[in-house]
Amino acid sequence: MPNSFGKLFTISTWGESHGPTVGVVIDGCPPRLPLTEAEVQAELDRRRPGQSDITTPRKEEDKVEFLSGLFDGRTTGQPLAMLVRNADARPEAYAEMKEKFRPSHADYTYQTKYGVRDHRGGGRSSARETIGRVAAGAVAKKILQLAGPVEIRAFVTHIHHIAAPSLAHFPTLAEVEASPVRCPHPETAAKMIERIKEVRAAGDSVGGMIECRVRGVPAGLGEPVFDRLEADLGKAMLSLPATKGFEIGSGFTGTLLKGSQHNDAFVAQRGRVHTATNNSGGVQGGISNGEEIVFRVAFKPTATIMQAQQTVDLQGKATELTGRGRHDPCVVPRAVVIVEAMAALVLVDHWMRHAAQNRTFKF
Amino acid sequence: MPNSFGKLFTISTWGESHGPTVGVVIDGCPPRLPLTEAEVQAELDRRRPGQSDITTPRKEEDKVEFLSGLFDGRTTGQPLAMLVRNADARPEAYAEMKEKFRPSHADYTYQTKYGVRDHRGGGRSSARETIGRVAAGAVAKKILQLAGPVEIRAFVTHIHHIAAPSLAHFPTLAEVEASPVRCPHPETAAKMIERIKEVRAAGDSVGGMIECRVRGVPAGLGEPVFDRLEADLGKAMLSLPATKGFEIGSGFTGTLLKGSQHNDAFVAQRGRVHTATNNSGGVQGGISNGEEIVFRVAFKPTATIMQAQQTVDLQGKATELTGRGRHDPCVVPRAVVIVEAMAALVLVDHWMRHAAQNRTFKF
Amino acid sequence: MPNSFGKLFTISTWGESHGPTVGVVIDGCPPRLPLTEAEVQAELDRRRPGQSDITTPRKEEDKVEFLSGLFDGRTTGQPLAMLVRNADARPEAYAEMKEKFRPSHADYTYQTKYGVRDHRGGGRSSARETIGRVAAGAVAKKILQLAGPVEIRAFVTHIHHIAAPSLAHFPTLAEVEASPVRCPHPETAAKMIERIKEVRAAGDSVGGMIECRVRGVPAGLGEPVFDRLEADLGKAMLSLPATKGFEIGSGFTGTLLKGSQHNDAFVAQRGRVHTATNNSGGVQGGISNGEEIVFRVAFKPTATIMQAQQTVDLQGKATELTGRGRHDPCVVPRAVVIVEAMAALVLVDHWMRHAAQNRTFKF
Amino acid sequence: MPNSFGKLFTISTWGESHGPTVGVVIDGCPPRLPLTEAEVQAELDRRRPGQSDITTPRKEEDKVEFLSGLFDGRTTGQPLAMLVRNADARPEAYAEMKEKFRPSHADYTYQTKYGVRDHRGGGRSSARETIGRVAAGAVAKKILQLAGPVEIRAFVTHIHHIAAPSLAHFPTLAEVEASPVRCPHPETAAKMIERIKEVRAAGDSVGGMIECRVRGVPAGLGEPVFDRLEADLGKAMLSLPATKGFEIGSGFTGTLLKGSQHNDAFVAQRGRVHTATNNSGGVQGGISNGEEIVFRVAFKPTATIMQAQQTVDLQGKATELTGRGRHDPCVVPRAVVIVEAMAALVLVDHWMRHAAQNRTFKF
Repeated sequence: MPNSFGKLFTISTWGESHGPTVGVVIDGCPPRLPLTEAEVQAELDRRRPGQSDITTPRKEEDKVEFLSGLFDGRTTGQPLAMLVRNADARPEAYAEMKEKFRPSHADYTYQTKYGVRDHRGGGRSSARETIGRVAAGAVAKKILQLAGPVEIRAFVTHIHHIAAPSLAHFPTLAEVEASPVRCPHPETAAKMIERIKEVRAAGDSVGGMIECRVRGVPAGLGEPVFDRLEADLGKAMLSLPATKGFEIGSGFTGTLLKGSQHNDAFVAQRGRVHTATNNSGGVQGGISNGEEIVFRVAFKPTATIMQAQQTVDLQGKATELTGRGRHDPCVVPRAVVIVEAMAALVLVDHWMRHAAQNRTFKF
Repeated sequence: MPNSFGKLFTISTWGESHGPTVGVVIDGCPPRLPLTEAEVQAELDRRRPGQSDITTPRKEEDKVEFLSGLFDGRTTGQPLAMLVRNADARPEAYAEMKEKFRPSHADYTYQTKYGVRDHRGGGRSSARETIGRVAAGAVAKKILQLAGPVEIRAFVTHIHHIAAPSLAHFPTLAEVEASPVRCPHPETAAKMIERIKEVRAAGDSVGGMIECRVRGVPAGLGEPVFDRLEADLGKAMLSLPATKGFEIGSGFTGTLLKGSQHNDAFVAQRGRVHTATNNSGGVQGGISNGEEIVFRVAFKPTATIMQAQQTVDLQGKATELTGRGRHDPCVVPRAVVIVEAMAALVLVDHWMRHAAQNRTFKF
Repeated sequence: MPNSFGKLFTISTWGESHGPTVGVVIDGCPPRLPLTEAEVQAELDRRRPGQSDITTPRKEEDKVEFLSGLFDGRTTGQPLAMLVRNADARPEAYAEMKEKFRPSHADYTYQTKYGVRDHRGGGRSSARETIGRVAAGAVAKKILQLAGPVEIRAFVTHIHHIAAPSLAHFPTLAEVEASPVRCPHPETAAKMIERIKEVRAAGDSVGGMIECRVRGVPAGLGEPVFDRLEADLGKAMLSLPATKGFEIGSGFTGTLLKGSQHNDAFVAQRGRVHTATNNSGGVQGGISNGEEIVFRVAFKPTATIMQAQQTVDLQGKATELTGRGRHDPCVVPRAVVIVEAMAALVLVDHWMRHAAQNRTFKF
Repeated sequence: MPNSFGKLFTISTWGESHGPTVGVVIDGCPPRLPLTEAEVQAELDRRRPGQSDITTPRKEEDKVEFLSGLFDGRTTGQPLAMLVRNADARPEAYAEMKEKFRPSHADYTYQTKYGVRDHRGGGRSSARETIGRVAAGAVAKKILQLAGPVEIRAFVTHIHHIAAPSLAHFPTLAEVEASPVRCPHPETAAKMIERIKEVRAAGDSVGGMIECRVRGVPAGLGEPVFDRLEADLGKAMLSLPATKGFEIGSGFTGTLLKGSQHNDAFVAQRGRVHTATNNSGGVQGGISNGEEIVFRVAFKPTATIMQAQQTVDLQGKATELTGRGRHDPCVVPRAVVIVEAMAALVLVDHWMRHAAQNRTFKF
């Protein structure tokens, strides 16, 4: 099931950029969770295009409609399906893409794999697919908020060469949302916005990095071997469009430390075991240790640029293509919401898996 | 199934460091594949401890025994089970670890999750678990060799601060195996070995990075949304002990490029579509595009060091622990074989998934 | 994923009797399949309530809407989502059921399991859930028709005590559809209809049996151990509301034969291996042998009857309940379409699984 | 994973009749379960050939060896692998079967599907594969015994035309084991044994039926749609060699009742909700209702008979074959243990699934 994610809290998404709808069905949702459309809509609104002058001007209301699984304001334990209708379809803007493969897009690989593709706006490879993830992520976040509370906060640390100073505190949602670029360091945010506007003016694009922190996760989530918490978080992030890298805790930089510097000493604090440092990023042996979970994701520059590019057509002949349509010159700020959604989905799923094996029976 | 990996070519591993055996069963193996124990043993020998003076002196023959699934030298399509007996068990060396949590190991998280743990040598969290992966990987490699041929070559690029120059050609196996540190650049390899010996002498440890290149993969492998090829490769690598990061193609560095620099122009060559550059790392929209697949994995320094470290005991009281037992001061050289094994497993699985959806029926 | 079925051709259904919609998403659908809404609608029309005077008078158009996965009249290999809106919702008819558990319905078990339930019309336990199965089954049937052609024909053999004579030929669709009771033996069909009208007049209900035959299936589908073709067909049928039994080939009656009578001798016919008899029902060792697949399913009498019944309420106090709402006095005739749909889903899934393991690589 | 069963308590079996070993690995086993090899051996001894003069004289000790997952007499939550070595291999007895397909066996379908087969003793299709199931079932039974206690009791009700009177009470294990035919009604058991000896003397074989009852199962196990408890029990039973049918509760006979006769009235007893009758067989809407679970399984006569039979060879030419080797003239008595094992596996798996969705989070 290539379009499903999660073992016990499972989401299946559907939909294309310019098809009738995008949607998601959650299977395995715990019953009795209080839930409103407004709570899901709030997350979709954070993801929505056209939020600010640094995102795509594509106009989409992205209004969620609940299709099943709710009764008297609570989940019933049955599948919870939600959809959003695609409103602003302008397929004529994409006619050229029917014949030519856009560089660093999925056009060529889809065509080769399936022998057919919905070329309009990238079809299934469009980031509109993530609407279903964000809607399901809103449900997962609600669960975590009531269960922990677990707080998940993603934010932009790098845009192109502009890097935010490392953050001493766990940022508030307000700090992140204060700027359309979703970097909680105001001066850096201002520079990032400027850079994005520059590249857009040049018909170019940039990428960047997102850091995600999670606090309130109990020790014990994650599985020892293949389904380590960092492996599933990594897969979740690398399944997002435009991602090229993932690291947890000390990450790639940790390779520059010796063991004596990298190891996180255990300390007893307030009757609980903690670690003095957090190079582990909150996960040891694949299992959460109760510390803050910290990971980072790299996003490449948007593939669509408003410049002439060399490519080939359906017949394999050399040609040229200039980007059209409405695109973000930088997808990173909007991806913040999607990173949070995916993290929430992984955590709820592992929480249920942990309980199944370790809490069902008492010996 | 936390101890299983792969959807159609599925492996399930079992075993602990100091239990009776470690093993693996492959479910879904294609029938009629010619296979010998010697072919599997050859890969296990590359992974085996005690290969050189920079690895652990633990003496293990790691002799594979086939348990099922072979008949007249060919696979039958039935489960192929293999095991290795643990020979050099010295549990007395681990008595102290019963009571104390080793920093940056899995002791604390296992104890918290399960309420019980096999403390001897790390139990299930020991890297001996990867024996099953390497044995299964040998089978996957054989399949790829006959099917493509697909070649998978991993090698060490960084140990601590020592970095190999970037490699212009696809290295041969002989070049990689020429040095015990498995860096195909001889001068750098010599420096790496020296560094490893230094840290071992100091009772310390170091980490590093592995690059893996794969050539001969046809376009079309990988799924569009959650099971993107890079997402499954990332999960595979992040499921290995001691990994902290994964990147594909341009990776984290790619965030410093603009779209106009990063995009891989399509070109027609010898009747086939290629890309002029390979920032995509061989995967676009989650699907292989026929170019070389290139990814990198970060490994932290070995957690076990021969120095006194601050920790807590089972009762949560502060105490001190000094590493004992026989350990690699640097796991990266031996991990090369495991990285290749996991890459092979991912590719065979996706090849079968691709064929199932796109080659079963013709419309 | 309790609401998903199939490993490679996977369907996930959602929806309740009186919620906004019922629907389904197919994941893993082969690309380039020509498909129209009309083809799906035709199967839904066969399942629809209000078709004749022996079914429920509930008026539902059950108009299918495609949500994704189609482009230019062909599947794209991406998720194919479809929904039907619930039109004739009369929740007031169900007020009493909020407080009282209907005997032999799912009310008590849902309430106990989830601590909440959508009581309106049975909620998720309503047979309206099967709309998604029938819609997905229509797609699977289309695949089988183009691939084989494989023909699937289910029909009613028993209603209450009335049994049709055993059928010498593979019945045509027209023969089955000739009567609203879907028994291809006209005289028996007439008696069955009469019986159903009798019990309805008495406010009572009856059950019966369906036989399903499949021809054109190649040898080789099915897996040797747990996922035997008959095991997956059995699970598919026993997952339908109101089913109490499943048998294949000689079934329960086969226990009365000796091995020398029961064994199906192999014979060579027209250059192919056949069996002289078909007590195996087309499956040997879990794998199709190319003969006709024949199985039977038992359906209990409809639980809802228009008579006073003893039951308990939410507080566990004894009370009485008389069925209301609009119900089929016998679900068997409409279940014929659903049995065919489930059989089609199992076969397409196993066809893809077979190809994945045995046709991807050639050794 | 055709050789795996269960979603959360997952078993994977391996091994052929005349290969080196048969075995199983359990993934997801709850930690801290006290377990000894003797407990598993006891169940294997009940399944073992050569127990009595009505079973095959094949001599096998079937001695279980634990390979992993146990520490200090308790499960660790890690994979629990177990194997049995095949001792009494006499492949020369099977030489003829290399060239000829045995009627109503899996020889032809395996050869067709895989293009290769281990013909010795049926290879993977041999009932020796069930050793892994019984070993894993012993673990599941232990869990259920400590958790409920849940008691699972299977027994033989029919051998050929000989039927035991229906049983008023839940039989004890001693009553079942009192006779080698495992029918708890002594007079009937005597007749069954006589019949089996008769057919064996004639070189023929017989089948029969097993009933299985389970008490102590809490209400709430099972999933509403595809993974109904009866669907998963049915699949489990139909995955056993030689099974041709499955029914639960009233089963096929229930089709002869009217709704007013078939419905199970709810009654309040001792502060709990019960049903006055149990036509539902303990499952309603796919979910256990707390009543006794009752189902029946039909087994065909053993395919191997000591009589000349018409068949074809590998080249598709007509030939004749007379059974050789050591076989049970009736597999039903030994299957009792396997039916119990599969029921236990289904129940533990569903118990964990239920807890995961409904007990992890409290709202």
